[in-house]
Amino acid sequence: MKIAILGTGLMGAPMALNLIKEGFTVTVWNRSPGKTAALEAAGAVRAETPALAAADKDVVIIMVTDGSAVRDVLFSQGAAEHMSRGATVIDMSSIRPAEARDHARRLAEMGIGHIDAPVSGGTRGAETGSLAIMAGGEEAVFAGVGKIFDAMGHAILLGPPGSGQFAKLANQAIVAITVGAVAEATLMVREAGIDPERFRAVLKGGFADSVILQQHGARMQAGDFAPGGRSSLQLKDLENVLAECEAMGLSLPLTTLQRDRFSELVNRLGGGDLDHAALFLELLNRNKLAQ
Amino acid sequence: MKIAILGTGLMGAPMALNLIKEGFTVTVWNRSPGKTAALEAAGAVRAETPALAAADKDVVIIMVTDGSAVRDVLFSQGAAEHMSRGATVIDMSSIRPAEARDHARRLAEMGIGHIDAPVSGGTRGAETGSLAIMAGGEEAVFAGVGKIFDAMGHAILLGPPGSGQFAKLANQAIVAITVGAVAEATLMVREAGIDPERFRAVLKGGFADSVILQQHGARMQAGDFAPGGRSSLQLKDLENVLAECEAMGLSLPLTTLQRDRFSELVNRLGGGDLDHAALFLELLNRNKLAQ
Repeated sequence: MKIAILGTGLMGAPMALNLIKEGFTVTVWNRSPGKTAALEAAGAVRAETPALAAADKDVVIIMVTDGSAVRDVLFSQGAAEHMSRGATVIDMSSIRPAEARDHARRLAEMGIGHIDAPVSGGTRGAETGSLAIMAGGEEAVFAGVGKIFDAMGHAILLGPPGSGQFAKLANQAIVAITVGAVAEATLMVREAGIDPERFRAVLKGGFADSVILQQHGARMQAGDFAPGGRSSLQLKDLENVLAECEAMGLSLPLTTLQRDRFSELVNRLGGGDLDHAALFLELLNRNKLAQ
Repeated sequence: MKIAILGTGLMGAPMALNLIKEGFTVTVWNRSPGKTAALEAAGAVRAETPALAAADKDVVIIMVTDGSAVRDVLFSQGAAEHMSRGATVIDMSSIRPAEARDHARRLAEMGIGHIDAPVSGGTRGAETGSLAIMAGGEEAVFAGVGKIFDAMGHAILLGPPGSGQFAKLANQAIVAITVGAVAEATLMVREAGIDPERFRAVLKGGFADSVILQQHGARMQAGDFAPGGRSSLQLKDLENVLAECEAMGLSLPLTTLQRDRFSELVNRLGGGDLDHAALFLELLNRNKLAQ
């Protein structure tokens, strides 16, 4: 099976490596060409444009920053136009559900299948091939690319086009709220003179435990907010969650509160480029406390 | 080592069984005597009063509902009075940190050690001996009862008297907020036509995953709110968190919002005896939606 990967940044590059290891023939394209050197050394072919990368491939995987970047490579730079009827686009970027539905519809008119398949698990999940892949699209198309997903993590088809993107937004809402819960607990125990590291250790495996408690709780304690997942992206995700939910007439009080607080962190406290664990700084600021 | 256990309800009974299995000599007392029958069959001795249970024991474990119940068995019903100098009280009930500090001080005046050691993990954790035990007190006293904790789960000493209770409150804050996060995600995906069970499955092991997502998310989807942990107790815990934090001058926005919402569930929607996953009902009610 011949695969093209458009976008070989922090996530796309390790995903491409796992596909090469599994024996797929992989062509790569990236906006900044320097990022493909390690993949070429591992056996990938580099293409000069999205259109040249996509031509004659069975599957074109897209992993770029947002919906307009997806639209650009697919429809403005000619990737879709150069694909064969019966080929499949797997869009693993995190974009709005409505955008994914629009791309699926336009590709269907060209005889091209589409799966929206955003992921959770970060660069570590991409490297170890253990990504959670939230998929939306048609069952037959999904079944046809199962081996590709197996090389990168575990995928579940959640419903029609856009369902994967919608699930990713719900995932992000949980993450943003849990970061806030961990921030409040970390501050509480710290101010009570309890070592947050011991607190995290005793909670391990219990009802309050999570990857976020262990990883982001440690970042908060250390004041280490190098990203990871940027607060500006967390804010964008929460705004997308609430835009979708307002359109559905849904009121989500915790998600709304967290959107407002990430907005404060990004727009007033200058924390947009910090890891989303930096919500701890918003909580410190609110309490007039220092790290 | 001779142990008395005061309070053999849903949590105390399986904890007593694990101590018996480990070869400890166990005397039990419970306010309603019927609850000790199974323990007597397993080898425990039943005492008629807290004082008779506590007399001549090395360690007295208390597992009752709240601070006033602890005070009652320890100081009004004479358990402390009948204990020997050098013996230890392990209070595994969930009570306020200030109450735990007060008990530790009064017991110290009588030459009796005190460890506050509330737990997380529920009846399942008590049965399987895998409780998270959050301990406060003196290091030497804690070290002296380590084998008792090993029979029930894993314990970490977090600081001076009251530290265990304080950590339990922080634990409960995380739990209450995470329940709310899972409720919002469950409602979102349901209203978008995605099966919440598939959503939970794809998130397994990722950043948004937690025991609460898997267990309480399933309860929300099924509308199964048999307790488990009662909403009325969750509300009591959140009120205790905020009382402690106000005294420390701390502002915790998510915990405050969840306190208000559990108050709505308990005091206006009549959900006090339902599992705390019933916060989903408050969210449905807010959105004028049905289960």
